[in-house]
Formats: sequence, structure tokens, C-alpha cells
Amino acid sequence: MSLIARTNPRPIKYTINPNPYAKGSVIVECGNTKVYVAVTVEESVPPFLKGKAQGWITAEYSMLPSSTHQRIKRERNGASGRTQEIQRLIGRSLRAIIDLKKLGERTIQVDCDVIVADGGTRTTSISGAYVALELAVRSLMKDGLIKESPIKEQLAAISVGINKEQKIIADLNYEEDSSCETDMNVVMTKSGKFVEVQGTAEGEPFSAEHLQGLLDCAKTCLAEVFEAQDKALL
Amino acid sequence: MSLIARTNPRPIKYTINPNPYAKGSVIVECGNTKVYVAVTVEESVPPFLKGKAQGWITAEYSMLPSSTHQRIKRERNGASGRTQEIQRLIGRSLRAIIDLKKLGERTIQVDCDVIVADGGTRTTSISGAYVALELAVRSLMKDGLIKESPIKEQLAAISVGINKEQKIIADLNYEEDSSCETDMNVVMTKSGKFVEVQGTAEGEPFSAEHLQGLLDCAKTCLAEVFEAQDKALL
Amino acid sequence: MSLIARTNPRPIKYTINPNPYAKGSVIVECGNTKVYVAVTVEESVPPFLKGKAQGWITAEYSMLPSSTHQRIKRERNGASGRTQEIQRLIGRSLRAIIDLKKLGERTIQVDCDVIVADGGTRTTSISGAYVALELAVRSLMKDGLIKESPIKEQLAAISVGINKEQKIIADLNYEEDSSCETDMNVVMTKSGKFVEVQGTAEGEPFSAEHLQGLLDCAKTCLAEVFEAQDKALL
Amino acid sequence: MSLIARTNPRPIKYTINPNPYAKGSVIVECGNTKVYVAVTVEESVPPFLKGKAQGWITAEYSMLPSSTHQRIKRERNGASGRTQEIQRLIGRSLRAIIDLKKLGERTIQVDCDVIVADGGTRTTSISGAYVALELAVRSLMKDGLIKESPIKEQLAAISVGINKEQKIIADLNYEEDSSCETDMNVVMTKSGKFVEVQGTAEGEPFSAEHLQGLLDCAKTCLAEVFEAQDKALL
Amino acid sequence: MSLIARTNPRPIKYTINPNPYAKGSVIVECGNTKVYVAVTVEESVPPFLKGKAQGWITAEYSMLPSSTHQRIKRERNGASGRTQEIQRLIGRSLRAIIDLKKLGERTIQVDCDVIVADGGTRTTSISGAYVALELAVRSLMKDGLIKESPIKEQLAAISVGINKEQKIIADLNYEEDSSCETDMNVVMTKSGKFVEVQGTAEGEPFSAEHLQGLLDCAKTCLAEVFEAQDKALL
Amino acid sequence: MSLIARTNPRPIKYTINPNPYAKGSVIVECGNTKVYVAVTVEESVPPFLKGKAQGWITAEYSMLPSSTHQRIKRERNGASGRTQEIQRLIGRSLRAIIDLKKLGERTIQVDCDVIVADGGTRTTSISGAYVALELAVRSLMKDGLIKESPIKEQLAAISVGINKEQKIIADLNYEEDSSCETDMNVVMTKSGKFVEVQGTAEGEPFSAEHLQGLLDCAKTCLAEVFEAQDKALL
Repeated sequence: MSLIARTNPRPIKYTINPNPYAKGSVIVECGNTKVYVAVTVEESVPPFLKGKAQGWITAEYSMLPSSTHQRIKRERNGASGRTQEIQRLIGRSLRAIIDLKKLGERTIQVDCDVIVADGGTRTTSISGAYVALELAVRSLMKDGLIKESPIKEQLAAISVGINKEQKIIADLNYEEDSSCETDMNVVMTKSGKFVEVQGTAEGEPFSAEHLQGLLDCAKTCLAEVFEAQDKALL
Repeated sequence: MSLIARTNPRPIKYTINPNPYAKGSVIVECGNTKVYVAVTVEESVPPFLKGKAQGWITAEYSMLPSSTHQRIKRERNGASGRTQEIQRLIGRSLRAIIDLKKLGERTIQVDCDVIVADGGTRTTSISGAYVALELAVRSLMKDGLIKESPIKEQLAAISVGINKEQKIIADLNYEEDSSCETDMNVVMTKSGKFVEVQGTAEGEPFSAEHLQGLLDCAKTCLAEVFEAQDKALL
Repeated sequence: MSLIARTNPRPIKYTINPNPYAKGSVIVECGNTKVYVAVTVEESVPPFLKGKAQGWITAEYSMLPSSTHQRIKRERNGASGRTQEIQRLIGRSLRAIIDLKKLGERTIQVDCDVIVADGGTRTTSISGAYVALELAVRSLMKDGLIKESPIKEQLAAISVGINKEQKIIADLNYEEDSSCETDMNVVMTKSGKFVEVQGTAEGEPFSAEHLQGLLDCAKTCLAEVFEAQDKALL
Repeated sequence: MSLIARTNPRPIKYTINPNPYAKGSVIVECGNTKVYVAVTVEESVPPFLKGKAQGWITAEYSMLPSSTHQRIKRERNGASGRTQEIQRLIGRSLRAIIDLKKLGERTIQVDCDVIVADGGTRTTSISGAYVALELAVRSLMKDGLIKESPIKEQLAAISVGINKEQKIIADLNYEEDSSCETDMNVVMTKSGKFVEVQGTAEGEPFSAEHLQGLLDCAKTCLAEVFEAQDKALL
Repeated sequence: MSLIARTNPRPIKYTINPNPYAKGSVIVECGNTKVYVAVTVEESVPPFLKGKAQGWITAEYSMLPSSTHQRIKRERNGASGRTQEIQRLIGRSLRAIIDLKKLGERTIQVDCDVIVADGGTRTTSISGAYVALELAVRSLMKDGLIKESPIKEQLAAISVGINKEQKIIADLNYEEDSSCETDMNVVMTKSGKFVEVQGTAEGEPFSAEHLQGLLDCAKTCLAEVFEAQDKALL
Repeated sequence: MSLIARTNPRPIKYTINPNPYAKGSVIVECGNTKVYVAVTVEESVPPFLKGKAQGWITAEYSMLPSSTHQRIKRERNGASGRTQEIQRLIGRSLRAIIDLKKLGERTIQVDCDVIVADGGTRTTSISGAYVALELAVRSLMKDGLIKESPIKEQLAAISVGINKEQKIIADLNYEEDSSCETDMNVVMTKSGKFVEVQGTAEGEPFSAEHLQGLLDCAKTCLAEVFEAQDKALL
């Protein structure tokens, strides 16, 4: 389809388990964007799940002050609306591929800290979180804490957008993201099912045809992200 | 398409200008859900827009404590993540149909206060906000404060979902929303273009075919919402 | 007494039980002032009353952003001093007419949300709260949750003031309230006893004679308020 | 009148100017109750008074953690409703006797810190604040900063109450205050005019006859407070 | 040693047990600096010490708004970094001389409120806290609540500094403190052992020789502080 | 001296300029402890320095949630007392070696984010901050923004302690730090002068002889830290 101008992601790199204390951790790079994801496990569940024979998984997201061109302030008086929205997205996406019953009565905490922000920090966080989560699950199984992996499917995310020329491009960097007419984040499983689709017209509203192009472009691009995850987890 | 089980919205009712002080206001009802939307205008812009010969439009959303079956607490120690996410969605959606230059150096504040919450409060807020905004613009024009309407297109929103039987239904009430596998909010213009598409798999991830069904269902349902808005604004 | 220039209240209107989820609710109008009062019941008491075989009643007060001529900010970083003072007044006034032992171990929460503010919002809230409370008690009795009404007496409130001409007038609207020398809120029972008397000299201190006039004026005016409540509760 | 059982205040003691840095200060004792009042002056006014050729006076109130039998927490996460209510009362009372125009464009800040709390801390604060204010005005006049005293009248306050035996007593200590049916604070000028009257039925509502008794009792008692102030300011 | 120019403290005065409700209290003056210290006791321990058969001691520090030349704001939105640092120092210092096991399962709370601040408020607080603590322990023993004093050693603190002429002086007042090159706080036991040593170069870094001089100067000066404490506790 | 049992630091590693956006940055490792330091520059000064022809330097410190064995919470409701104390220490230490006049009217912000915490995070932050600061100054000079380096001297810091056997050891890891009787942080310049000395008796107070041993041990150990910095900055 001629609407789509670029389907490949920026170069992806996973550095496995840099953190000596976490159950699983990864530094994920996507172009210049660099996110540090650490998974820790607590042997209890939040009050609303007490005694329900299931676990919980939740996420936090934060940008280091020096992660952007212009230093940003630490969120010490409460997380911003944007931060909370991203945290909720990451947590929700991970819960969609986890069988919380198989997890047992424990809580998995995923911390995504952005070291360098050049666009796509929330999608990079999700793709990295999947890898760190898989590492943590392997560790829990090795320790005999869980018998069967609670992960139901492989998960990744990508941003796609419509640029000023009305062309669709995948994996926007900061500059592209700032100038796009429409920005869409797609969270998908390896089998091609959708977990989250969030498309926003920053400028002009977009047509149904463009919406279809965005989804197709995301799917093609995510194939490469899944491949990079597979290599990292070999 | 046999995937789609219900395309009509619940009964919609607009009560015009109940507020004597606001530039435009509306009580919008969609089934049991009832939202009070008031538009106020300030003759100044936020600091980041000073001297740029354009206006601004922003929104706040809140639920009254008694709006739900179980009383909810007032958000007096900061808005929750959910509240902030909804506020950002409403503001962004309205900015997509407004020519901020035609607005002049003034700020339009849209307050959406939920009186009764039976599902779809964010989409009902958006559909109601469009009506209140149109009323406010008419008032500003009548007062000679602006010459030309800054509204580019009519706007409405609806929620659609996939239920346990994998059927697609429109305009979910609270009970349906709680039990749905997937929930999607669609914000659209009358010409059929998308402003926001937010689909979330609460249970199982959803297929491309279901995604298409959700979008089709939303479009059909929104035709009736646009019609109700038209009647209200006659 | 020639000091008193006006003893009648503005037109009063009660709209009964607009809220489908609350135990009792009312929209009370007094002139342009319009307050939405909802009573919800929780089957537990605050920690300091645990095991004391009695209930509790407490109130919250808030003004919607568009309730005033100039939009006011939501109190999301803590309630203001004024708001807390009014909440405490409403809660205290209601506790004075309730037998907490007859209530049983449950908490009654009264939410007063001001929709339009044209003076007298705290007194209108109290008069409306009495009606909503009576409706809630009837509902609790119908459900068999309590056997005997815990309400000891009928309650209403009014504001009175001394204007620039040193004349006493009842039920001040916003403009009158702003220009008054002295402002007094009187909360009374139907049998003519006082629950709260709060008089404040905004300008010149006031004489004992004027104080007596204010109390007399309030009593006369409140007779009409009690009558309006009676009609609403027929 | 046989309703009134006690009209005299507890022993009153003023220690003048203990603070070397403040413009005026006093330690005021009333029975065991002990409040430290300091008046500081800033050569500017709050934004809402800029350029209006008048000054401002405002007050803060706080209880030291060890001022009560049971240690109380510092209010480091915002002042409580009670604290804000008292601060507003003190500030309002002082403004009623000050000609803000004669003050010039400066702000008087009155800090009332309770060292020992045995009932009547708010009224003792007001009576002490008057003395500290008079001292500060004398100092400002001596420094040539103001020519004429902006104080229009002498001010004092007292609490009166109705006890379990339906008798009226003046200047309640903590124990009496806790067991009273009704509690009233009266702020008065030396010429016998009222600045604030705040009566609250904690138990049974009170009659008009009792209300009159409370006011008479307060007036008699305040004569002694004014006398003590006069001696302190000789 | 010629480096040291002044070893004596300013005049010290202890006023014993001014607070009728606290277990022990003292007003300690050191030159113009004046701190009110009150010790209260709670018959419980913080959660992290539950069931460990030991007590706890903690401290709070605050400056009254009028304690400085220029009025300072109350810390009602959280204690400042400086305040928290001082509180932690006082608490840590006291814990170093207390046998928490002998204290039993109770918490000692030390409140230090600065009435006049002319330099050395944190060291004056510590020296005063020792005296108030000793008084509280005596009271607890008299009441038979503890059998043996948990205090292991006498404690005092002083500030020393290096002035512009590179001379070492003890017990800096506000003006000296502001102009010093280096400022050091020394907390010591009567037997000459160190509990805390905190030296900070505000201007030029300081030599090992000067460091030795500061420690010697502090020791000499503290001998007089211990003597003043002894007299107060006779 | 037989009191001193270990003077060498753990292996030190500096990774230079990992951050593409910061003026200077470094990942500093000391044993397992790992801190990310980034220096950003803003072309303005805080209000209190406006128009004084000098610059400012300030620091922030934070621990990533996964930096410790047990995950720690993000400080989103205000920095803890410990965090603020460390931030103030780092900022003060850096200001002691900077000529703020040579910096010009700009602000240097130093962010220290702890990636792995195994003891000595505050001293490692300071030693790393010196390196990042030197890199930032070189960059500012290369860009022609400043002509002469404002850095007066090389700076490093180390922790030393007295263990249970009363022996002095340098560069404590987490376990050693937790079990030490006394803990001291020493901030020094290369010429051997002190910038900060902070010694705390966690258990028994310490003697003058031990204090001298701690200082000697710190000096010997710091020689190796200065050497590592020199190599990193070659």
C-alpha cells in the first residue's frame, strides 16, 4: 500500500540482567531511546487480592532528569498525568499476557526508568518489560517458586504515525513524533492479536484508510521487534 | 457482519443551558449516565501561549461522590491517574476540531462533572462538551467577541466492546463494561474521521477482524449521537 | 421593629430524590442559589466509634467550578479553610438533631455540591440536608435497617445581615452579602431553639440591639423555610 | 439573673515584649492556658491589595505538640480545619478594629502559638493579639513609620457556656468546655459592640433566654479582661 | 594553641519544667538563642519495634515564625531539608546515650521549638534535650514505670568555627555563623567521647591542623556546658 | 597505626559521557555500588542570585527502586529526610571547589541516580560528580561559553568506619556499614584539605584516638580515588 513509507524499527539492542539484585532486568535500546527495566518480586499481594489464590503485576515509569535535551524536573510532588497514563498502559498490557493464577500469591513490580528519551519510550518500555518479565519468570521457576510459566504469549509494542506528507512511518523518533499529524501506539501479541490500540489525531483527524495503514505498518514492524526479543532470550 | 450484536446508543437527552453564569452548558444523559458540562471563558491564555495570537481549550473531569452505587471519595489530594487520563482525552479531542487562531487570545475551560455514572462517562462527556462548546461559541459571536466560529467539525464519542460471547455491542452500561473482554472508546467527527481510537483488551487480546467490527459498530452508533446533538442545537 | 427591613426568604424549591443510587437526595433552590444534596449510608463507623453502639453523621461541601460568575478552581490540593469551616458547620448542625444511638453502627455521609452560588450556600445546604436526611431515614426504616427515626427535630438555617443603611434583611443574595456590614448565619430547630449562631462584623461592630434584631428576623424567616420543607416531605 | 452561675475570668497575666525581634509580642496567660503572640511587620501588601493605598493584617494559630495532656502532631501536611477556622476568626476580628488605610502599604502578621492549652485558646489569642498589636503600633509610631494609630477600638474575647445543669459560666477551662452543652465565643469592643458571636449547641439546642444569658455573661466577664489589658499596656 | 581565639560559651540558662503536661521540659538559653524542649512519653513503640522488648526515642525540631529577624514561614507543607537534617541529628545523638532496652516498650518524643534564633539552635537543642530527658527519666522512675535509668552518659553539643582571620571560636552567634569560613557541630559525652562531628567548609576547605583546633576548642567549651547542665539538674 | 585495618577502596571504574544530551556525565562504580551522574547547564540563575554576576551549582540524589536488595519506593510525595540531607551535602561539597564568579550567570545541575547501592552511595556520588563536572566544564570552555575553568581543586569523598572489633576500615560496603559502630564520611580536596567531615556514632561514642585514625584512613584511601579520577579524565 503506497500510504506506508517506512515499516522497519530503529536498531534494537537488549542488554540482559545488568541488575544484580532484581529477579530480571534489561537495558533496552531502540535507536537513541534507552530504557532500564527491572523486575522485582514481592511475596504478597495488594489488599484487594488477599486470599484469592492469584498474583498481581504492576508497573512504574519514570524519566531520569537528564534523559531529554532540556533537563526535566523529578516528579517529587506526584506523578504527572502523562506518567500515570503510561504506567497504567504498561501494567495493563502485561496483565493481558499473564495468567495471574499461575503466578501464585505474589506481586511482580516492573520499573521502567528512561535513561535516554528519543521517542517511543512507552512502547520501548513495554517491549523491554516483556523480556525482563520472561527473565524473572525463568528465575522464579529455577528457584522452584512457580512450576509453570504464567506467561501466555509474547508481547511487544511500537509507535506508528502519519507525517505531514500523509505517509505512514513506524517507530517515530522524538522529532518525527513532534511533527506527526497522528500518533498511534500498538501493543500486540506474537500471534497477531491486539492488546492495546491508541491512536490520537494531534493535527487533522484521520481517515479509516489511514487507520488501516497504521495497523498494517505496526504489524510489519513488530515482527522485527519480536525477532529481536527472541534473540535476546535465547 | 454477524460479529456485531448491537449498534444503537441508549436514549440520549440534552438539557440546554441550565447554568446562568456559564457561556454554554448542558446536562447530557445517555441511559442512566448523566453529565453536567459547563463552558467558561477567560480573556487570557496560559503562559506558554502568550503573544502567539491564538487561544486555548482545556478540560476537567470529575465524578460527584454520590454518582456511583458505592460512594466514591472526593479527589482532594490530587486527581487520580484515571481522572487525569480522561481530562487529557477530552481536552485533546476538543482541540482537534477547534481552530485556535480563530478563537483569539482567550481560554475556553470545559468542566465535565458526572452526576450519575452508569458507564460511558468519558464518551458522554465528549459528546456533551461539543454541544456546550457550540453554545458558548454562539454566545461569544453574539457578544461580538469572535467573528467566525472556530469550530471546524462536529464531534462525538462512543464506547464499544466485545462481550463474553465475542459479540460486539455499542454504548456499554456499567455492568456490560465491567464484564467485557475488550473495551474501546472512539472519538469521531461527523464526516467520519477519527480523532481518538483507544482499544484495550481487559481479558483476551482481540483479533484484527474484531477490531474492524468495533470501528464499524462505533460509526453506526455515532450517527445517532450526531443526530441527537443536531436536535439539541436546533 | 423598625430595624428589620425584610423577613421573607427568596422563593424556595425542593426537587426530591433526583439521584437513583443515594439513600436520599434533593436539589434545593433558594432564589438563584442551587445546591445538590445526596445522602449515602455506609454500614460501618469511623475507628473512634468502633464498638460504641452508635452511628455517625458527617458532611462534605464543595462548589462546582462553574457555580460562580467567575469560574473557581477545583480544590484538588486540599479543601480551603472556608470549605472546611462550612463542612464542619453542616456536620455539627446535623449531629445536634440526630440521636446517634438510634442510628445503629452506620455512617451517614451528606454531600452538598453547590451548582449555582448566589449567596446563602451554607444555610441552603443545611436546610436541604435536613430534607435529604429525612428521605434517607424513611428509606432506612422501609428497608427495616432502623426501627425508629433517629431525627429528634426539624432543622433549617438562614442568613441575615445588616446592610449599609443599618437595616436588617433576611436571606442575602451574593450582592447583598458582599456589601453587608454584618452577616449572621442562624441554624434553628422548628421549636425555636438555636443550634448555631454565627455573627460576624465585616465592617463596623454591631450593637446588642442589632443582634436582637438579627435573631428575630432569622426566626421569622425560618418559619417559611420550615413550611417549604414540610411541603417537600409530604 | 439566676441562669448565670459564674461571670469572672480565670486569673489573667500579660508578659510584655519577650521577643527581641518582633515589633510587638506578649505571653498571655488565662488560668493555665498560655499563648505566645508575636506581631511582625512586612513593608509590602498581598497582591490583591497592590496600589490600593492600604495595609493588611492577617493571623496564624498553632498549638505546640506538648501544649495538651496528650501530645498532638505538628500540622506539617497542611493546617487542620479547626486551625484554619481559628486563624480566620482571629484575622477577621483584628481587621474589624483596624483602619487599614491608616496602616499604609504594609502587612501586619500576628502569630499565636499555644504553649499550654487548658480551654479558651482562641479567645485568649484574640485578647493577647490586641495587646501585641497595640505594642507593635506604638513601635511603628515611634519609628515614624505611621503617624496616627490605625486602631479604632480596644478588643477582647471570651468563651462562655451552658453546663449540664443548664447554668451559664464564663471562661471555660478544658474540662468544662468538654462537658458543656453549648459553647459560645464572643469577640467584643470596649464600647460593648459585637465583632463576632459564635454559639454552638454541642448537645441540646439552646433557648433564646439562654442565648441572652450567654451574651450578658460574656459582657460582664469581658469588662475584667479589658481591665487586665489596660494594666498591661500602661 | 594560638589558632584558638575563644573557648567559652555564651551565658547559659536553664528554666526547669515550665510545661505542666510534659514528663520533662526545659527552656534553654544560650546567649540570645532560646529553645523550648518538651519530652512526652507514649506507652507504645513504632511498628518496626513491636515485640522487641525495647523502647524508642525520636525528636522533632521547629522554629517559631517570629524566632528570626525576618519572620519565617511555618513549615505546613512538609519540613524543609534543613529541619529534617536537624531532627535526625538530635534523635540520633540522644539514641547514642540511651539504653533502649532499659526504657521498656515506650516511645520518648522530644520536641525542640526555637523561640529565639541567634545561632547554635541545633546544638542548644541537644544540650537542652539532655536536661529535659533526664527530668523525664526521673519522673518515670518516680512513677515506678522504669526501675533503672536508661541514660548511659551525659550529653551536650556546641558549634565551633573558623572565622575570616582563620581563628577558631566557640559557640557562634548568628552573625559569626554567617561570616565563618568553616562551621562545625560537635556532640560529645561528658567522658570526652564523640557522638557526632559535622564540619563543613562554607568558604575555603580547612586544614588538618584547623580540624584539630576545632575539636580541642569544642572540648574545652563543652566542659562549661556540662557544668551548666549539672547545676540545672541539682 | 594498628587501629587501622584496611585503607584501600574497592575497585573503581569510570565510564565517561554515556549521556548524549548532558554537558558531562559518568557512570561511576565503586565495588558493586554504581551511580549515574549527569551534569546539565541552564543559562540562568535562581532568583536570589539575579544580577550578582555569578553562577550556581546544585545537586539532586535519588535511588532507583531496584537499586537495593529489597525494592524501595519512589519518592513521589517529597524527598525523604535522608535524600535531602545527601543532596545538600553533594551540592555544598561541589560549591566549595567552584569559583561561582568564573562560572558566569548560569546554573549547573548535578543529578546523581543510584543504579546499584552497596554502601557509600553518597561518597561515590561526590567523587563521580567531580569527574562529570570537569567534563562539563571542558565542554563549556570548548563551546567558548566560559574562558577559564571555575574549578579550584580536585574533589573526592570516601566513607570510613569503626567495626565491632574497634578496627578502622575504609570504603564500607552495605553489610559493613550496617554493622559498624561508627560511620564517617570525609570529603577532601587533592591538596589534603577538608571540605566535609561527618562522623556519627551509631553504637558506642568514639574516642579522639579513633577519630584521628578515621581521618588518617580516609586520607590514605582517597589518594587512590584521586588517582582513579585522574586516569578517567586523561
